[in-house]
Amino acid sequence: MDKIKLPMIDDVRSAAERIKNYIHRTPVLRSESINRIAGAEVYFKCENFQKVGAFKFRGATNAVLSLTDEELSKGVTTHSSGNHAQALALAAKMKGTKAYIVMPSNSTRVKVEAVKEYGAGIIFCEPTLEARESTLTNVVERTGATFIHPYNNFNVICGQGTTALELIEEIKNLDYVITPVGGGGLLSGTLTTVSALSPATKVIAAEPEGADDAFHSLIENRIVPSIKPKTICDGLLTSLGELTFEIIRKNIYKIVTVSDESVIKTMRLIWERMKIIVEPSSAITLGILLENKIDLKGSKIGIILSGGNVDLEKLPWIK
Amino acid sequence: MDKIKLPMIDDVRSAAERIKNYIHRTPVLRSESINRIAGAEVYFKCENFQKVGAFKFRGATNAVLSLTDEELSKGVTTHSSGNHAQALALAAKMKGTKAYIVMPSNSTRVKVEAVKEYGAGIIFCEPTLEARESTLTNVVERTGATFIHPYNNFNVICGQGTTALELIEEIKNLDYVITPVGGGGLLSGTLTTVSALSPATKVIAAEPEGADDAFHSLIENRIVPSIKPKTICDGLLTSLGELTFEIIRKNIYKIVTVSDESVIKTMRLIWERMKIIVEPSSAITLGILLENKIDLKGSKIGIILSGGNVDLEKLPWIK
Repeated sequence: MDKIKLPMIDDVRSAAERIKNYIHRTPVLRSESINRIAGAEVYFKCENFQKVGAFKFRGATNAVLSLTDEELSKGVTTHSSGNHAQALALAAKMKGTKAYIVMPSNSTRVKVEAVKEYGAGIIFCEPTLEARESTLTNVVERTGATFIHPYNNFNVICGQGTTALELIEEIKNLDYVITPVGGGGLLSGTLTTVSALSPATKVIAAEPEGADDAFHSLIENRIVPSIKPKTICDGLLTSLGELTFEIIRKNIYKIVTVSDESVIKTMRLIWERMKIIVEPSSAITLGILLENKIDLKGSKIGIILSGGNVDLEKLPWIK
Repeated sequence: MDKIKLPMIDDVRSAAERIKNYIHRTPVLRSESINRIAGAEVYFKCENFQKVGAFKFRGATNAVLSLTDEELSKGVTTHSSGNHAQALALAAKMKGTKAYIVMPSNSTRVKVEAVKEYGAGIIFCEPTLEARESTLTNVVERTGATFIHPYNNFNVICGQGTTALELIEEIKNLDYVITPVGGGGLLSGTLTTVSALSPATKVIAAEPEGADDAFHSLIENRIVPSIKPKTICDGLLTSLGELTFEIIRKNIYKIVTVSDESVIKTMRLIWERMKIIVEPSSAITLGILLENKIDLKGSKIGIILSGGNVDLEKLPWIK
């Protein structure tokens, strides 16, 4: 395999410049009562307030804005039933190009509607990875659209890295930054930024106990695939990619696994104390502090709350 | 009756100066999708992010900080089962004085716990207005504590008026400011501020259809008591007071009533689109724009989201 090109801090800076008129600069919030409970000074970077309700919009926008005019004329495509689908749909719409989203036929109506609302074309397929990939290949062959991978994509990673860039510009001298890890897009973007600009800051990733493939990938020093993950964190089900694994492997301080029980508890804590809506895949970050697997007491911590897209009909603590 | 002394803008400014190191300066948020739905430019002043989760902390803090040392030595008291109870308890704690909170014996455990958490003493009474008042009188006689009325209190009103002060400092040339109205503390504070500093801005109040005593009070030009109110907006059940009625009568542009159905719809809309938690008594403000009883299309509107204290076990749209 050729040596893969990893993003550098200047790539993240270029992304920040490229997307700044399209994204929200999200606020950093804090909560005295959560600080008291966690025994630490915690700063929450609120990407749940980002457009489409998740950091994913940064990466998708950077990817779309990095295309040539010819590529743009043919549109973009991806397979996703989650936040990346919506993010890419809106990014394409803003740039006046077409998005083709391959979605499994069992996607919830809410998610399908959300993607439609942003004007994307939806192509349904069987809910298997094979069907998703072959359907996507068909779309690319038929339309010439550019495939924007949800996380294993240079420009997507650079876009996600702008979240931490804003965070550490605003809050200095953090001891730790915590992000969730699923495919590793946000985590590797964060690592690119933090390791360059604030090398003393340690980056920790939170991963569901029932989807701990990244945790094992670090131990085995190879990409351990995510097989039959079982967790409430529906944004953290996927395996790492080659690009994200390489960045994570080189720079991360630690991956800490968190039980779904702790995820639900911290999700509710954030809703109650901060009056903001975060999804399970976001709440897991604070879960680390409550699980006490690692001692972060007394430290200054930046937490990236990655998104707030929750089905409000079904809250996990309501039986 | 003697002529009652009404708060002036300088009183609000003094309150702002007095409480500024104790309160949060809350953010003003906006949402493109809500603007699109409402057909207006809406700025949300987020008092759901205020300490204790509601604007009530401003008024309670100003009232406590306005006491003499002798008064402070004897503590403060009120009857309330809602946000004012928590607000007064925390304000008293911050100033190192005692709070005695009279609560009806049928108050929910959550509310009792919240007040206890702030270190207040709780005195239970029968759940009738008579019992609340006689119990309060006993507390005052026994302890010498100062009664801080939840809204019909000069210093409380001045404190609540600081919310609008921050809003109009940040967002200029608003056509309208909308607040909810229950007892009228927030509304009369807002009127005091807005009529003095931005006289071209019209203040509108949102009131539940099932608790429309303020609406009728304006029509009849006397305080019509709130009898057997029936609404999901549990913060908007009370009658106006002499002081709040006087300010409202003189300065308000309009009171618009909103159905509980619209309240629930807008509450969910705010949760979904803005990813913030607001209580029904807050969501009612945006309800005005969706009910179309008054045409606000194309205008620039400041909305005060008064609080975010919701029982997360029971969401009104989950059957």
